[in-house]
Amino acid sequence: MLHFSTSFGKLLSELKKLPGVGEKTALRLAFHLLKSPGQMHDLAESLRLVSASVRFCSVCFGITEADPCGICTGDRDDTVICVVEEPQDMLAIERSHSFRGRYHVLQGALSPLSGITPSQLRIAELLERLRQGRTKEVLLATNFTVEGEATALYLSRAIKELGIRVTRLAHGIPLGSDIEYIDAATVQRAVEGRSEY
Amino acid sequence: MLHFSTSFGKLLSELKKLPGVGEKTALRLAFHLLKSPGQMHDLAESLRLVSASVRFCSVCFGITEADPCGICTGDRDDTVICVVEEPQDMLAIERSHSFRGRYHVLQGALSPLSGITPSQLRIAELLERLRQGRTKEVLLATNFTVEGEATALYLSRAIKELGIRVTRLAHGIPLGSDIEYIDAATVQRAVEGRSEY
Repeated sequence: MLHFSTSFGKLLSELKKLPGVGEKTALRLAFHLLKSPGQMHDLAESLRLVSASVRFCSVCFGITEADPCGICTGDRDDTVICVVEEPQDMLAIERSHSFRGRYHVLQGALSPLSGITPSQLRIAELLERLRQGRTKEVLLATNFTVEGEATALYLSRAIKELGIRVTRLAHGIPLGSDIEYIDAATVQRAVEGRSEY
Repeated sequence: MLHFSTSFGKLLSELKKLPGVGEKTALRLAFHLLKSPGQMHDLAESLRLVSASVRFCSVCFGITEADPCGICTGDRDDTVICVVEEPQDMLAIERSHSFRGRYHVLQGALSPLSGITPSQLRIAELLERLRQGRTKEVLLATNFTVEGEATALYLSRAIKELGIRVTRLAHGIPLGSDIEYIDAATVQRAVEGRSEY
């Protein structure tokens, strides 16, 4: 029986902890890296660097090296805050080039079943930012899942109490879609939200 | 536009070099690691360790921490050498508990189209081992692909010249298969290689 060396076995078990990586993928990745020592070294080094330098912005809780982050300190519209669940949602909205305000990353969504309550999200920090008085609109961009919708509902109540306008991303047919394949609930929202043409 | 910090961008580009990892998977892995700093540290550390301690065995060219490896120095049948393309093939055969001899890893297969010639594989080292005179049989376990078959053919000629018996893994129907779904060439080999029952 071939015994993996301790360090190789440890690498396999670390790789298997990654999302979507099972026994076979871990082996494939490990052997690939073993054949490219330079690549293995570079990957280890950049993990170490990210681990040492990347942190969460203390204002918006997105990821950054400098705190506060470039978006929080940059020349952006101070009166609108877009609220997202995760840093990668922030990235998706930035990629659309459609939003020029600031962000707030909740770092999750409310989920009573998984025991995620408001105190485990960055909600207190959001309300604190809003109380500073510059914000005129909060765009809720949590996911359109049960958890994301619950979070949006919870936030909209708390934010409206502060007299701030609350908006939500539009529902509708995604670009490039065949209408026949879109689910009925989405089509219903698209019809209800129809615009002049 | 959200600019990734240098180190995070570098990590993404390193992850994208892994087999089967594209833009989206790299982002998913990177954000996953960012949420689990301990895991990121452990992964970096085990990559560093493997990079520092795992090498190729100077006898069989499998992977090992001690050189020569445990199989080359272990209590195994000295008269049979199983030739495989990659260390992971060696692992697959060890897992089958069906082979008690030694191994030789070619570290690839002949592929004129990709410019892989005999001198780029560990073929000279194999022939050198065989010339030492202890080997009575070489089991060719290269893959059943065009490249693997070409390599097996090339090796069998060179090895037979040394007066050593050359064998090849059997073709046939894989265990647990529905015969109706097996390709015709495999069924043909299974019929030709039929045994008493």
